[in-house]
Amino acid sequence: METIKKNLTERRSRSMIQITDPRIEGYLMKLQPEDDAQILAMEEKAREMKFPIIDRLVGRFLHLLTRLKQPKLVVELGSGFGYSALWFARALGEGAKVVLTEYAEKNIAYARQMFEEEGLADKAEFRVGNALEIGQEYDNIDILFIDIDKYQYPAALEAMLPRLAQNALVIADNTLWYGRVVEENSNKDSEAVKRFNELMFSRSDFFTTIVPLRDGVLLSYRI
Amino acid sequence: METIKKNLTERRSRSMIQITDPRIEGYLMKLQPEDDAQILAMEEKAREMKFPIIDRLVGRFLHLLTRLKQPKLVVELGSGFGYSALWFARALGEGAKVVLTEYAEKNIAYARQMFEEEGLADKAEFRVGNALEIGQEYDNIDILFIDIDKYQYPAALEAMLPRLAQNALVIADNTLWYGRVVEENSNKDSEAVKRFNELMFSRSDFFTTIVPLRDGVLLSYRI
Repeated sequence: METIKKNLTERRSRSMIQITDPRIEGYLMKLQPEDDAQILAMEEKAREMKFPIIDRLVGRFLHLLTRLKQPKLVVELGSGFGYSALWFARALGEGAKVVLTEYAEKNIAYARQMFEEEGLADKAEFRVGNALEIGQEYDNIDILFIDIDKYQYPAALEAMLPRLAQNALVIADNTLWYGRVVEENSNKDSEAVKRFNELMFSRSDFFTTIVPLRDGVLLSYRI
Repeated sequence: METIKKNLTERRSRSMIQITDPRIEGYLMKLQPEDDAQILAMEEKAREMKFPIIDRLVGRFLHLLTRLKQPKLVVELGSGFGYSALWFARALGEGAKVVLTEYAEKNIAYARQMFEEEGLADKAEFRVGNALEIGQEYDNIDILFIDIDKYQYPAALEAMLPRLAQNALVIADNTLWYGRVVEENSNKDSEAVKRFNELMFSRSDFFTTIVPLRDGVLLSYRI
């Protein structure tokens, strides 16, 4: 949580590139009204707590990718209080599940409550602890979602590669890191994000692309 | 061809919103070098002829979606000289195919030549004529790609809905129409794109989202 809060403050205080024109983002949000009570409650909570969650447009995108992929097992590295996990879970078929990983017990408790209210608790495993350590307990992961501290991205990839199913999809958020990947002044986080992107694109056993949706969503499909 | 050329000139002469920051687009292009001879030849031809093709980043995205979806049948409404179709075809599995539709016979002839050079001709049907009429000859379409004249988008949706497979994916390019969907001064094309977007988002039998990649890629998954 401390790291998360620090990151959020950093993001807001530093100059950033506006990746997408705000009028376009406004149009997209207006087209896609949301009436799901749990989704709206989580968004409200994130605003109140200034807690970083994925954008709703990213959530909808994850949801659609999950419907296309029809995975049996989704593992999230870095779940916060479960907002992205809920978008995954709502797209899962019979017998499939999403594993949430998060340091803060109270975040996981809140996630569990939201999942129960939505009737989706049987589609999730709620795990408290180190995301990388927990992630490596799983095998045949169909979708790996990476959204932990940015400096950990390259290490997460290395640790999790042996855990992926054939034809797995790796999804990573913040891979444009508020545009800092193209800025001169870099720090530990932006260097790590750049290295992670280069690692993924250099692998011939994955087909990789980045979609400039909000803060940049990397998609990498294991061939 | 006449309409295409007219549209292209119109696009360039009118003011437009820069949807994505050009530095970000530059970074993304640099990450994803391309060495496929046919892809590069088609991009060169498009530049020389000032012929509108999808962006390479959109091509990569279509390719990845196709790998996720593993369709048997892809139908393109509006194939030009086959650039998007080649991205689809390269992602298709055994026995799957993409149907190209295009008015201009010489464009289809060129597409066929490129597919043959790439060894992918058996994965494609090359059709000359009215895209909407030809499209309706097919059933159980897994992926429908819409990239015809923009004023035709709503009609294309209506005509093709009965032809879609269960769990079909509809993909439409230019759904932000160079940002004109948020501009006051609209014309026949931008009104049609807006109406098309609203139609897709209003349907509860589809889960729809727009990715602001280049000119806006609409994705709609039949639930």
